[in-house]
Amino acid sequence: MAEQKICEDLVKERKKCSFDVQELVHLIDGGEKGTKERREVENLVLSAEGFNNKDEVPEEYLSHKERYENAIRKACILYEILKKYAEKHDTMDAFKPSNKYRVTFGVVKDISPFMLHMGMFVPTILNQSDPDQMSEWLPKAMSMGIIGTYAQTELGHGTFLRGLETTATYDPSTEEFVIHSPSLTAYKWWPGGLAHTANHCIVVAQLYTKGECYGVHPFFVQIRDTETHMPLPGVKVGEIGPKMGFQTANNGFLGFEHFRIPRRNMLMKNAQVLKDGTYIKSKNEKLTYGTMVFVRVLIVTDVAYELARAGTIAVRYSAVRHQSQPKPGEPEPQILDYVTQQHKLFIGVATSHIFRVTGYWLWDSYSKVIKDVGKGNMDQLPELHAIACCLKAVCSRDAAARIEEFRLACGGHGYMASSNLPIINGIVTATITYEGEYTVLMLQTARFLVKAWKQATMGNAMTPTVSYLVKFSQNDRVAWENTPSGIISGFEAIAAGKTKAAYESLHNYEKTGMDYEDAWNNASVQLVNASEAHCRAIITSVSWQEMVRHATNSSPSLAPVLLQMAELYLIYWALEKRGDLLMYSTITRDDIAKLQVRYEELLALLRPNAVGIVDAFDIRDEILNSTLGAYDGRVYERLMEEALKSPLNAEPVNQSFHKYLKPLMMKAKL
Amino acid sequence: MAEQKICEDLVKERKKCSFDVQELVHLIDGGEKGTKERREVENLVLSAEGFNNKDEVPEEYLSHKERYENAIRKACILYEILKKYAEKHDTMDAFKPSNKYRVTFGVVKDISPFMLHMGMFVPTILNQSDPDQMSEWLPKAMSMGIIGTYAQTELGHGTFLRGLETTATYDPSTEEFVIHSPSLTAYKWWPGGLAHTANHCIVVAQLYTKGECYGVHPFFVQIRDTETHMPLPGVKVGEIGPKMGFQTANNGFLGFEHFRIPRRNMLMKNAQVLKDGTYIKSKNEKLTYGTMVFVRVLIVTDVAYELARAGTIAVRYSAVRHQSQPKPGEPEPQILDYVTQQHKLFIGVATSHIFRVTGYWLWDSYSKVIKDVGKGNMDQLPELHAIACCLKAVCSRDAAARIEEFRLACGGHGYMASSNLPIINGIVTATITYEGEYTVLMLQTARFLVKAWKQATMGNAMTPTVSYLVKFSQNDRVAWENTPSGIISGFEAIAAGKTKAAYESLHNYEKTGMDYEDAWNNASVQLVNASEAHCRAIITSVSWQEMVRHATNSSPSLAPVLLQMAELYLIYWALEKRGDLLMYSTITRDDIAKLQVRYEELLALLRPNAVGIVDAFDIRDEILNSTLGAYDGRVYERLMEEALKSPLNAEPVNQSFHKYLKPLMMKAKL
Repeated sequence: MAEQKICEDLVKERKKCSFDVQELVHLIDGGEKGTKERREVENLVLSAEGFNNKDEVPEEYLSHKERYENAIRKACILYEILKKYAEKHDTMDAFKPSNKYRVTFGVVKDISPFMLHMGMFVPTILNQSDPDQMSEWLPKAMSMGIIGTYAQTELGHGTFLRGLETTATYDPSTEEFVIHSPSLTAYKWWPGGLAHTANHCIVVAQLYTKGECYGVHPFFVQIRDTETHMPLPGVKVGEIGPKMGFQTANNGFLGFEHFRIPRRNMLMKNAQVLKDGTYIKSKNEKLTYGTMVFVRVLIVTDVAYELARAGTIAVRYSAVRHQSQPKPGEPEPQILDYVTQQHKLFIGVATSHIFRVTGYWLWDSYSKVIKDVGKGNMDQLPELHAIACCLKAVCSRDAAARIEEFRLACGGHGYMASSNLPIINGIVTATITYEGEYTVLMLQTARFLVKAWKQATMGNAMTPTVSYLVKFSQNDRVAWENTPSGIISGFEAIAAGKTKAAYESLHNYEKTGMDYEDAWNNASVQLVNASEAHCRAIITSVSWQEMVRHATNSSPSLAPVLLQMAELYLIYWALEKRGDLLMYSTITRDDIAKLQVRYEELLALLRPNAVGIVDAFDIRDEILNSTLGAYDGRVYERLMEEALKSPLNAEPVNQSFHKYLKPLMMKAKL
Repeated sequence: MAEQKICEDLVKERKKCSFDVQELVHLIDGGEKGTKERREVENLVLSAEGFNNKDEVPEEYLSHKERYENAIRKACILYEILKKYAEKHDTMDAFKPSNKYRVTFGVVKDISPFMLHMGMFVPTILNQSDPDQMSEWLPKAMSMGIIGTYAQTELGHGTFLRGLETTATYDPSTEEFVIHSPSLTAYKWWPGGLAHTANHCIVVAQLYTKGECYGVHPFFVQIRDTETHMPLPGVKVGEIGPKMGFQTANNGFLGFEHFRIPRRNMLMKNAQVLKDGTYIKSKNEKLTYGTMVFVRVLIVTDVAYELARAGTIAVRYSAVRHQSQPKPGEPEPQILDYVTQQHKLFIGVATSHIFRVTGYWLWDSYSKVIKDVGKGNMDQLPELHAIACCLKAVCSRDAAARIEEFRLACGGHGYMASSNLPIINGIVTATITYEGEYTVLMLQTARFLVKAWKQATMGNAMTPTVSYLVKFSQNDRVAWENTPSGIISGFEAIAAGKTKAAYESLHNYEKTGMDYEDAWNNASVQLVNASEAHCRAIITSVSWQEMVRHATNSSPSLAPVLLQMAELYLIYWALEKRGDLLMYSTITRDDIAKLQVRYEELLALLRPNAVGIVDAFDIRDEILNSTLGAYDGRVYERLMEEALKSPLNAEPVNQSFHKYLKPLMMKAKL
């Protein structure tokens, strides 16, 4: 990098930066040690033989099959390196939010076919197997002696777990479960790595024993021979085809024809089936949802990272790109100087910070609750579930919108695969659907809110995340105050107001004679609105508190930058939701005009530090994978260099000219 | 289709439909004759040899190069059929909005490499060449004797036309222009078909003659030999690589090294260069922007059609898909019965109708203005330009958002390439950027609005689309009325209020001592907001008027359905913009609650006709290209059938197992 000439525009931008970029780098990594360790892993991986250089032909030019083969090749090298690293380091930190292992994007640009191995197969073993099972399966899985995935969703069934069709019927005569797919819609569909990569998987199936169905349970199932990789008899497995993104994830389908597994392959930390077929119930059924909650919590910090990647690309490109000539005779300004461009970019960059600190807060809550659960205390599970649901839903959706905005902010070039924004878009937009679809999760939170509202109106004590409902249950409009805490109160008032409106709508529908579930359905648009408002109240209050805390612990040059981003986030959303504020607070048109002025001031304050702020995400070029976002800003050179790698450009005339075009033109001349 | 069993759910839905689907089909086609002609073209094309069946291996599995070759093969067959059709029919209707030729999507699923031939090359010849040029070039172009494209955008220059670097310098000694690309950023970049398909193109370049630069002008340039297809000496041409969509559009780059063309290859309908190099100015410089305005106008009806495709897919899938069990013991309901799902779908379907009728209205305005311009009357050009800018911008952006919502409404399966939603998404999201980037166009409209506001405050007479500004220039808040015309007045009041706010912000910045362009930049977020509000006022008023007109001419069974969609559209946006209504009208919380109730009523009213309404888009399965949206509703069967076409599924074990996976696993056992 040092030898490569850096674009003048970026050199100037970096000189302007008013804070120490490394200080912000450390803050994002959770301390200097975090940065050091992350960089160590990145160096280790990116200097390894086999992928220390880009692919000669970028993967977007390859066929679907070639892309998979290339991804497997690279994913295997990656895992060998990480295995070696694991021999000398504690790598259990891979199961908590941090940027330490994001370097995988420097190896497989899109999603790795091994993603669900460490992402869900191993965590499920960790969370749901009993000690004997764990000691048998975990070492093999951790060392890649077996390769696994997690098969739950079916072709005809996703959201509604109880609707899964795959059965696991216990046969006491052989002490085996018989796994079976009774129909086409029962086929497992979607699991990453399932198609041609995994030889084992966790299969979620309806457990039948002694003629009774006990609902869905997880089973540890071998699906391919470990020597030949051939699907075992009774197993039908294959890939589901190309998608909007996740092209190298190797998503697969899986069907069983009366396929037998030993009794002890049921994961037995919670529920059990004894040799004679007796079913022993789990102490708490919610325990089995552990893996899903875990993944939802991680999604919040995952999308924060993708926002950092896309933001780095869009901001650096905007510093290099020049356009138009508002003033005759002057040179074309950097597009970063257009306020409309700042409006598109800075909220996205700020959102990355907001989601990261909110995600860490959520992780801490999750860890505490899981610890308590271990001690037998389940009290806080419903609240954790409610907050994880709406945070996963809202953060994934907001992130996708912001990333599309970053992409659009790069104009036509943002549409180029080589910008990497399309792949990032494909990765993030998927998070809106997987591990709990947006609307479904929002309605989960709404169930909690409706119960909480009832408690609040009765004046009962509330759990922390909904305690604000009490404050606003009597008060129609909160007194507006043009400060961060005033804005947060405004969001709480909106959430309370919308919860109340949804609650009343629900009961009005009930009064017409509908039963509860029909009334719920009819009120559901408003129930989702209430959940969203609740979630925004949580995000604004948690993130403001966390950003202020970070600012307090930062140098005088960094602190104001952190506060500017946090305030920008609050004011952006206050302006977005001004209609709600007008309904549930005493805000006036004049107050709104003042917020608009302050918003424009904040854009101007952030402008000189924009490149410094994205530099502090400290994402190496190999992990960004972007012609537009590289550290040196050689945008146009890189765009052309990548285009010239096209196999179509290897020959001046494509064969299709002689076969098709020329005959067509000839006929015109007749 | 008749023999194929149709999914029971869809049979039931179709029985429920309360109107005659064919009547709505005709309405959409602009009459029975329109339907007949469209179906004729569809039958002709889809029964042709060469692509009457789907590709054996769907194109998403192919490499980038193979996809191009396959697209060229099919595009050539298509053009031969259309040429034969043109021999017996007047095909100039291809240059106005209709669905007659949408069948191209039944041939090339994504964008055809010939798109810009008929889309911009031919229209530019039509609009900008003089009679001699036209008679020389047009027949060749229409018969595909030459294949062309339109090369304007450069690697470093898009929006800012004056910033283009490519030069065309007149040399009177040989009576030639010398076309030259002075730098990497001067390379043409993006034109569809330019890479390996076109042998001619319109090149937009800075005209230099007698040492003076006269700005950008279009030139007719041959770039490849028609016999060998080799790039001509002095021409560097190739493809720019994969993108988010448009994978088969064959977008290219093009550079010139002192490349000579005859003087008469400058398009000379407007400006001219004489033999001695004398420059003759165009009578009106705006005339040269004709092709761009033309394309912008068409984009509105194009995105309406894509909304129809995506809506058909999402609504049919939602009728077939069942999920959850709100009531114990009852079967899982169709997801179309969930009100949250109706909320996602019906606004998108309604928007297709709204944009179609608005687009036709815009086309009529365009045609009138162009006719007047032909007579030398340019008065209405600025207004047409202003309205075309914001309509293109807002409709493309709204359509992309609605299509993403349709896609998300299909859950995980909407992410499958075989749903066709990712390709439709790629096509529509591109319209936000090409032919005038969103923000840039919005600011164009804002320039017009600011001028109009000044006129309005002086009480001057206004042109039709901004006449409402006068009404609201004195009035702070419009009296709210809970009716369609009340909502439209509300939107006009919002537009006036935001125009006023932006205007004042602009002048407040000026008062601080900034020059006009800096003040403009600082106020630009608000200026864009004003443009958006203006555009929504136009859309709501035009579309309501048009839908009422259609309803008046429809049968008593169809009329209410049209009005329901039109009203749904108004109320949806009134609720979306309730914050603005609270600011600029006397609407109360109570009014808003009533709108919400009416909105939920309209969803319920539209529900039984949902499948009938999308059936009336009359889009054949071959043009939908969707596993989820086919007429027969065999969703799961089709998903599996398409997956089984994957070359990866042709062998049970991929070679990468032996090469990479097995060695990795073996090392774990050591």
